[in-house]
Amino acid sequence: MSVVSRKYPELNISDRILLSAGPTNVNPRVYKAMNTAVIGYGEAAFSPVIEGISSMLAEVFQTEKNFTMALSATGSAGVEAGMSNLIKPGDTVIIGSYGFFCEQMAEMARRQGANVVLVDGEWGRALPPEQIQDEIKKHKNIKLVGMVHAETSTGISQPLEDISRIAKEHDALLVVDGVTSLGGSEILVDEWGIDYISSASQKCLGCPPGLSPVAVSELAFQTMDRVEKDISSWYFDLRLIANYWGPDRSYHHTVPASMLYALYEGLRIVLEEGVENRFARHQNNTAGLRAGLEALGLNVLSDEQNRLAQITPIAVPDGVDEGKVRQHLVNEYNTEISRGLGRFAGKVWRVGLMGESSTRANVLHLLSALEHILPQEGYEVAVGAGVSAASKFWSAG
Amino acid sequence: MSVVSRKYPELNISDRILLSAGPTNVNPRVYKAMNTAVIGYGEAAFSPVIEGISSMLAEVFQTEKNFTMALSATGSAGVEAGMSNLIKPGDTVIIGSYGFFCEQMAEMARRQGANVVLVDGEWGRALPPEQIQDEIKKHKNIKLVGMVHAETSTGISQPLEDISRIAKEHDALLVVDGVTSLGGSEILVDEWGIDYISSASQKCLGCPPGLSPVAVSELAFQTMDRVEKDISSWYFDLRLIANYWGPDRSYHHTVPASMLYALYEGLRIVLEEGVENRFARHQNNTAGLRAGLEALGLNVLSDEQNRLAQITPIAVPDGVDEGKVRQHLVNEYNTEISRGLGRFAGKVWRVGLMGESSTRANVLHLLSALEHILPQEGYEVAVGAGVSAASKFWSAG
Repeated sequence: MSVVSRKYPELNISDRILLSAGPTNVNPRVYKAMNTAVIGYGEAAFSPVIEGISSMLAEVFQTEKNFTMALSATGSAGVEAGMSNLIKPGDTVIIGSYGFFCEQMAEMARRQGANVVLVDGEWGRALPPEQIQDEIKKHKNIKLVGMVHAETSTGISQPLEDISRIAKEHDALLVVDGVTSLGGSEILVDEWGIDYISSASQKCLGCPPGLSPVAVSELAFQTMDRVEKDISSWYFDLRLIANYWGPDRSYHHTVPASMLYALYEGLRIVLEEGVENRFARHQNNTAGLRAGLEALGLNVLSDEQNRLAQITPIAVPDGVDEGKVRQHLVNEYNTEISRGLGRFAGKVWRVGLMGESSTRANVLHLLSALEHILPQEGYEVAVGAGVSAASKFWSAG
Repeated sequence: MSVVSRKYPELNISDRILLSAGPTNVNPRVYKAMNTAVIGYGEAAFSPVIEGISSMLAEVFQTEKNFTMALSATGSAGVEAGMSNLIKPGDTVIIGSYGFFCEQMAEMARRQGANVVLVDGEWGRALPPEQIQDEIKKHKNIKLVGMVHAETSTGISQPLEDISRIAKEHDALLVVDGVTSLGGSEILVDEWGIDYISSASQKCLGCPPGLSPVAVSELAFQTMDRVEKDISSWYFDLRLIANYWGPDRSYHHTVPASMLYALYEGLRIVLEEGVENRFARHQNNTAGLRAGLEALGLNVLSDEQNRLAQITPIAVPDGVDEGKVRQHLVNEYNTEISRGLGRFAGKVWRVGLMGESSTRANVLHLLSALEHILPQEGYEVAVGAGVSAASKFWSAG
C-alpha cells in the first residue's frame, strides 16, 4: 500500500437509508448519469443538457412565465441569490418568520443591507396571511415579501396564495424558499404569482446536493435592471447566469457538468412518475408514517392543517436522549434521521420522506426500528403497533 | 418510448479530448468515486472525506499555516468569496490587470463597494512588481493586493514573491486567483505569504467543475472578524464555512457530497503522482507542444519568461477563421480547444494541457490534427513538422 493510501485510504462509505431532512437517497440512474463524460460548457453537444433542464424545471415549477435555470451551488445559495439580486441597501423587506430557515432568509436579506421587518409567527404553524396584511400596511415601498414554502425545521407547508395577493396589492415582489418543496408538493409558480423561487437538487428531486434550481419572473429581472450596480454578487448575478441559460449561451462561469447530468436525469425520473403522482406518493407515505407514530404515542409537532408531506417533526419524549436514538438508528439500522434546529434543537427529531427515500418500505423499516430502540432508551411502546397502524392506514386508503 | 423520453432523451454525450482552458478530462477513478453513496454531511462516516480533503489540499497548496477547505461552488466563486469576505465598502484595493480574469477580479471587488485601483500591465506579459510598488506608495490603508497567478486568457504565470513582500510592507493582504495553477504548477502559500488563494476542481486537479478549494491565512480570518457585519454573502462567509470544515463540523449548508468524493479521489491521484512530478509533467508536455507549434510557424503569444505550463495562447494566423478550426477539431478530431477572451477574442486559440489532459499523446494528436486542418483553412504548413519537432524536443530533453 502506498504512503498516500495509508494516509488517505480509498473512500469506503456504505449506502444509508436517508430519512433525514436532506440529502436524500439518490436514484441509481442519477449516479449513472454522473459517469457521463464531462465536456465543455460551450459545446453544441452540451446544449441539450441546459435546454432540457430549463424546460423540465418549468414543468415541475408549473410555470410558463418564469425563466428557469439551476444555479451552480447548493440550495441555500438560491435563497441568497434572490436576496442579493433583488435588494439594494436601504430597501425594506418583509419576511415571514416561523422557523429556522425563515430566520436564515432574514439574515441573508440583512447582509444585503435591507431593513428587514420580521413578521413573527409560531414555530409549528403556518403564518396567517392577515399578519402580513397588517404589517405591510404600515410601510411604504416594500421591496419584497419573503416566505419559506416548506419549512423543514417545523414541518409546515406555508400557503402562499393570499400572501401573494397581498404582496401584489402593495407592489412588492413575492420571493419564496422552495428548497424542500420542488418535486414533492405542488408549487404553482404562475398561478401563485411567485417572482423568485429557489430550490435544491438533493431533496425531492432525488439528486445529490450541488445545484439550486430557480424560477425568475420578468418583473424580478426588471427589478434587477433598476438596481444593477448594487448587486453584490457577480457569481450569483441572475442576469449574467440567464445569459448562459438562454439562447446566447454566453460564458459566465464553468458550470458543474456532472451535477447537471445528475439533475437532467433526476428531472426525467420526476416527469416519468408524473408530478401529481409524485406529490400523492409523498403525501401518502408520510400520512402512513404519522399513523404509525401516533400508534406509538409519539407526538407530531406540526399543525395538522398545514403539515408537510416531506418532513415530519416528532417531539422527543421526556427523558429520552434524542442523540442516542439517532445513533442507534445509524449504527444498528443504517438509517439517518435529523435532529432539531434552532429553538427545536434537542427537542425534536425530523424524519424526511423525500424523493427516492419516500417509500412504504422505508416507513415500515423506521417504525419497527423505533419500536425496538425506544424501549432501550426508556420509552415503552407496544412493539408492532406502529407498523401495524401504518399498514392499516394504507390498506384503508 | 415514453413521452418523457421523446421530449428529453437519455443523455448521449461522447467522451472528448479536452484541451481547452477547462474543464479537463476526468480520471476514471474520479468518476467511480462519484458513485459513492451520498450520506449526510454531519455523519461521522463523512468526516474522513472532509478531513482528508482539507489535509490533502494543505499538501498541494504547500501550506502548514493556512486553513484549507473547498467552497461549494465553482472556481470563480472562490475568487468572489475572497473579495466579499475581506472587503468592506469604501476599502481601497489594488488589483494587477494583465488579462481577462484580472478584470473579473476587479469587477468582483467593485461589487463589494471597494475603491479599486487597477495597475495596468500588458496582456501576454507578467506584471513587473515595480508597478505595484509605485502605485501602493500613493495610497494609505490599502486593504489588499489582488493578483491572478495563472492568467488563462494570456497564458502567463505571474511571479508573486516580490509582490507579496511589497504588500506586506504596506500592511495589505495578498489575495490570489489560483484557479488554473493548483496541481499544475508550484504554489508556495506559506513561503509566498498568501493570505487568501482560491482554485477550482476542474483544471489541474482532474475533477469535474463544482468546487473551489481555498487556503485562508489567520490574518485573513482576523480581518473578517473586523468587518463581520459587512460580509455580504452568508453562503460564502468563510468563517461559517470553516466552522463546518474544522473540528466542530457545525452545520452551515448541505455540502455537495458527490463533488467532494470526486475531489477526495482527485487529490489522492495528485499526491500519488507527487506534486513535483506533476508540475514537471505539465511543463514538459507544454514545452513539447510549443516546439511543435513553432515548427508549424504558429506564434505563441505569451512572454517566454513567464509562460504558463497549463495554457498556451496561439495567435490565429491572418486570414484563418478561428471558429472554423475549432469546429474541425470538435467534429473530426473529437477535441476541444478554447477561443480567446476579452481583447483576445477572435485573435487567439488557447490550448490547455492540464491534469489528466496533459499527456504527450494529446500533444501529438493536436499537432497532427492542426497539420491537417490548417491547410484546409488557408494556412499552409509542412505536414509532419509539428509532430516531429515535439518528438525531437522530448527525445532531446
